[in-house]
Amino acid sequence: RRGEMAKSTQLIDNEVFRAYATYAAIVLIKMMLMSVITAYFRITRKAFVNPEDTESFGKGENSKKYLRTDPSVERVRRGHLNDLENIVPFVGIGLLYALSGPELSTALLHFRIFTGARIFHTFAYLIPLPQPGRGLSWAVGYSVTFSMAYQVLKTAWRL
Amino acid sequence: RRGEMAKSTQLIDNEVFRAYATYAAIVLIKMMLMSVITAYFRITRKAFVNPEDTESFGKGENSKKYLRTDPSVERVRRGHLNDLENIVPFVGIGLLYALSGPELSTALLHFRIFTGARIFHTFAYLIPLPQPGRGLSWAVGYSVTFSMAYQVLKTAWRL
Amino acid sequence: RRGEMAKSTQLIDNEVFRAYATYAAIVLIKMMLMSVITAYFRITRKAFVNPEDTESFGKGENSKKYLRTDPSVERVRRGHLNDLENIVPFVGIGLLYALSGPELSTALLHFRIFTGARIFHTFAYLIPLPQPGRGLSWAVGYSVTFSMAYQVLKTAWRL
Repeated sequence: RRGEMAKSTQLIDNEVFRAYATYAAIVLIKMMLMSVITAYFRITRKAFVNPEDTESFGKGENSKKYLRTDPSVERVRRGHLNDLENIVPFVGIGLLYALSGPELSTALLHFRIFTGARIFHTFAYLIPLPQPGRGLSWAVGYSVTFSMAYQVLKTAWRL
Repeated sequence: RRGEMAKSTQLIDNEVFRAYATYAAIVLIKMMLMSVITAYFRITRKAFVNPEDTESFGKGENSKKYLRTDPSVERVRRGHLNDLENIVPFVGIGLLYALSGPELSTALLHFRIFTGARIFHTFAYLIPLPQPGRGLSWAVGYSVTFSMAYQVLKTAWRL
Repeated sequence: RRGEMAKSTQLIDNEVFRAYATYAAIVLIKMMLMSVITAYFRITRKAFVNPEDTESFGKGENSKKYLRTDPSVERVRRGHLNDLENIVPFVGIGLLYALSGPELSTALLHFRIFTGARIFHTFAYLIPLPQPGRGLSWAVGYSVTFSMAYQVLKTAWRL
């Protein structure tokens, strides 16, 4: 039993893996928060997509008027989808990168820049900030993930 | 060769990791099934989005009428997207959680409640069940993932 | 310090895991390229969704005409979403599969067929090729992921 526990905590005892776990958890939590923000705007703007979601506003025609799209809701949803498209590759490639034996300082640099860029990207999308604010923060996160992918392929290449 | 095999099966020999692998595979398979359900409704309702998908129904104007949206297809697609938004963070955070050395019974409780909640969520979305059935099952799965993320950050925190 | 490094490179020294890391990185990079293709079509077709993205084309009414959907942009976006729905389960289940101790040759067969099928799928979607080209390549990738999931559940099953 103890032996198993020791084995299970082996990876988490590694400094780079701990850094990865911390930042991966932070960006995944950030991504999950988009669901709550969507729900907040759906409720305050009364803009729903499923008929069963509007039934608490009255029956029949009266509730049907809340089956509509709202610009704020759609904006948060686009931000959420952009997170899926960018944070998911980071989590997958970042895990392989963390296991490829990088220097701790280099790894931390990658994880920190990506996390900062994605948090900035969310604010740039939701406020919204004028371009190229959002575009640049997207490009920074994208480049960090590519840099890690290059390191993974250099270390692991086995076709 | 044997040595490699032994190393490769090390994680899978760990009880918590085996539990994680089982439930992660189950929820990912559940998510993949949404593609098949979408295809089923697209074919039976004759509602497609790509012109090349309707060509078997005849050429030109005759097949264009099948380029349309159908409420059932859109409902399954929303359920699929909701799975991506919730099951993907579970798989990522759950892996880190499984490697953070939790008690087997606590880990099983997290994995089982999440898996049950997401299967219920799919039925609640597709039937559909009246609210707050779907909303509550979403909140249960969401809370389980947050609980695991808290445990990961408590164990791994390394900024 | 050295001890930590050694531990961190343990998984990456395993042949099957190296193969997994290589192909997972390749398909994730392929998925990420969809963002660049979307941006390319948005800019060349002048079809945007966020008002702040069109401001460089002039102020007010003049730039509003670029807030529109374009068939090519929507097509790339559907291909990107299809990647999320299929590549993400491959990356998750593939990791568990690589850790379940498969034969290297069997694992390589799975990874290679999936990667080839998804690259073909992207071309079939974007050109587009007549059906059932795209449908078949989707089904091949889907089947490979199911085959790996079956192997994971057979090895790890622990409810």
